[in-house]
Amino acid sequence: MEKNSFLINLSCSSCGKIFSSDQVQTYCVDCNTPLMVNYDLSSIIGIVDRDQLACRPRGMWRWHELLPVKDPANIVSLGEGDTPLLRLRNISQTIGVKNLFLKEEGLNPTGSFKARGLACAVSKARELGIRKVVLPSAGNAGGALAAYAARAGMDALIYMPSSSPHANIFECNITGARVELVNGLIDTAGKFANQKATHDGWFNTATFKEPYRVEGKKIMGYEIAESMGWRLPDVIIYPTGGGTGLVGMWKAFQELKTLGWLEDERMPRLVAVQADGCAPVVKAYETDADSCEPWVNAHTIAAGLCVPKSFADRLILKNIRDSRGCAVGVSDEEINDWQGLLARMEGIFACPEGAATLAGLVKLIQQGSVTNDENVVIFNTASGNKYII
Amino acid sequence: MEKNSFLINLSCSSCGKIFSSDQVQTYCVDCNTPLMVNYDLSSIIGIVDRDQLACRPRGMWRWHELLPVKDPANIVSLGEGDTPLLRLRNISQTIGVKNLFLKEEGLNPTGSFKARGLACAVSKARELGIRKVVLPSAGNAGGALAAYAARAGMDALIYMPSSSPHANIFECNITGARVELVNGLIDTAGKFANQKATHDGWFNTATFKEPYRVEGKKIMGYEIAESMGWRLPDVIIYPTGGGTGLVGMWKAFQELKTLGWLEDERMPRLVAVQADGCAPVVKAYETDADSCEPWVNAHTIAAGLCVPKSFADRLILKNIRDSRGCAVGVSDEEINDWQGLLARMEGIFACPEGAATLAGLVKLIQQGSVTNDENVVIFNTASGNKYII
Repeated sequence: MEKNSFLINLSCSSCGKIFSSDQVQTYCVDCNTPLMVNYDLSSIIGIVDRDQLACRPRGMWRWHELLPVKDPANIVSLGEGDTPLLRLRNISQTIGVKNLFLKEEGLNPTGSFKARGLACAVSKARELGIRKVVLPSAGNAGGALAAYAARAGMDALIYMPSSSPHANIFECNITGARVELVNGLIDTAGKFANQKATHDGWFNTATFKEPYRVEGKKIMGYEIAESMGWRLPDVIIYPTGGGTGLVGMWKAFQELKTLGWLEDERMPRLVAVQADGCAPVVKAYETDADSCEPWVNAHTIAAGLCVPKSFADRLILKNIRDSRGCAVGVSDEEINDWQGLLARMEGIFACPEGAATLAGLVKLIQQGSVTNDENVVIFNTASGNKYII
Repeated sequence: MEKNSFLINLSCSSCGKIFSSDQVQTYCVDCNTPLMVNYDLSSIIGIVDRDQLACRPRGMWRWHELLPVKDPANIVSLGEGDTPLLRLRNISQTIGVKNLFLKEEGLNPTGSFKARGLACAVSKARELGIRKVVLPSAGNAGGALAAYAARAGMDALIYMPSSSPHANIFECNITGARVELVNGLIDTAGKFANQKATHDGWFNTATFKEPYRVEGKKIMGYEIAESMGWRLPDVIIYPTGGGTGLVGMWKAFQELKTLGWLEDERMPRLVAVQADGCAPVVKAYETDADSCEPWVNAHTIAAGLCVPKSFADRLILKNIRDSRGCAVGVSDEEINDWQGLLARMEGIFACPEGAATLAGLVKLIQQGSVTNDENVVIFNTASGNKYII
């Protein structure tokens, strides 16, 4: 039988200690840092033809050799992945950059990029026999977990700030998840989830507290490479809350290099965009710090960016610097303005987090950090429809 | 240069009169019926390899030979099409049918199947030099037209019942369309749109009043055939308001037969599902009528099914009967119940129109019109997120 996954094991992103992939894993408790998943890439080289991947049935799982699920019967899918990379001709003329693309993640199940990570995490959890999953979420991750848990027949419990978009609470409820609203932000919700995991046997699927969400997210990087003819853009601008997508894509690009699938091995500069009201990564980047200070009094209309401190802060900062990228903050007003312009000029109703990447790009152009002839990819991480109320 | 489209001309679906595809066309004013688009299918046979279509870049436009846009530069795309066909294992056990699939159209741009038709209509309108488009819409079509018109740089004017879901009004506004709310249903909105078209030079993109929306929608039929290994299901259950998708898919299946692309030429039975509060097709089907009477006092929670009389009523009824299918009505209560079950059992937050197809299937199983071993495809036409308020 063909091998579905070339998963080998996991290793601590800090100390390098190896962890078995046959058991339930969380993070490295010695270092208090995330685990990363390792694959037998050299075997994949001989078996998978890069150019035949496009002919497989659509979706994230056509990259199954590079994903952690060993038995395809465990895959829990709602059709995530293979989102379009849209050229923005109208906007690019306005802001002065020739080749601008938007990765439209709002076309995922549950209307957000969170579907990718949670499809992968729930599938692997099923493979490992897990039946109860808990998550702290600022919104869209909760909706995604609720949906995949429902499809997998698992119990889901979601701690969400009471300020989360109403649509997120609604979608969790209708898919049968238990929703607990908390007074506070995602860090407060995270403490409740931790308690449930420690004391009541729920498996915690919080960002980077389990190792497989990042694997689902990394496929965004593979898709960008494939869409651009196995070349990477010069700049990728990504809205950074927990940072799974940013870390995942950087991992994908290193894997792509090892696989020898790139026509040109130049790496893109990764730019983390945050909201001025909650910008721990921007602050750490600007002060040359290796880790983030928890942001005090965090507030922004972009719920997904209201993350006072990511568990993967060190990794995010390292990846940005390794890529010669940067971090940039934008105001809620700038987010609103560019959300409107993106909608009116390109017909894309982006979420605030998505609009933030466009606002961030405009700043970088004004600073001269992105030049007119560079290939730029910005991200819309969710459908604007989920933020109306 | 490769030919992008094998469009030949258009013909009246009633009298067969031929219309040029190089000029702007609406419908056959002699018969007051829709036009259908004709392609040089025999030339396509020699040029397009059915099995290579899957290797093309994702989306509706990989079927470009079978779509009406001659110059690819005129294509206005937001990444529509290539939606997943999801197996519903949990629900199928509950309702007693082995092979049940759901075509998840909520993963289209603007969160609904309307994106397909309006991508095609707006693209062809651009090719024909049209600059101002008007539409009466019960909701999602308005949002889709607004988005594609914005991307094409066209002016859009949308007449919408004031009872339409708030999300639809919001998405039209943010993408820069002019929205006029009308007291009444889509038929009232239709009269306003007609007036604008007749007197002020706006091009009317109302359902079947222009010939290209149905071409975009037909690709759903091609995708189903391809997903199922070039075999068609036994039964397709489709929520029927204006009926573009139903008529479009039946057209696709006839084209597929002519192209010789089917492994098995048995046609599916088409089932039109409507809401009990607005069921003109069901009534006409049950009374053996060839056309529909306008439904009086139409009301249902499924905004897209609140269509008192489709302009293509004769075609819809003919296609259903030619396929040996039927029409079935469901109550708003049944829609709500099955919407909840679909969400809790499969993680799919469907719109009311989508849930109606599941409710309709359950009725058909109870009646014995669908048997346990048949392959059944139901449709979710839009994301439930667009109906929260």
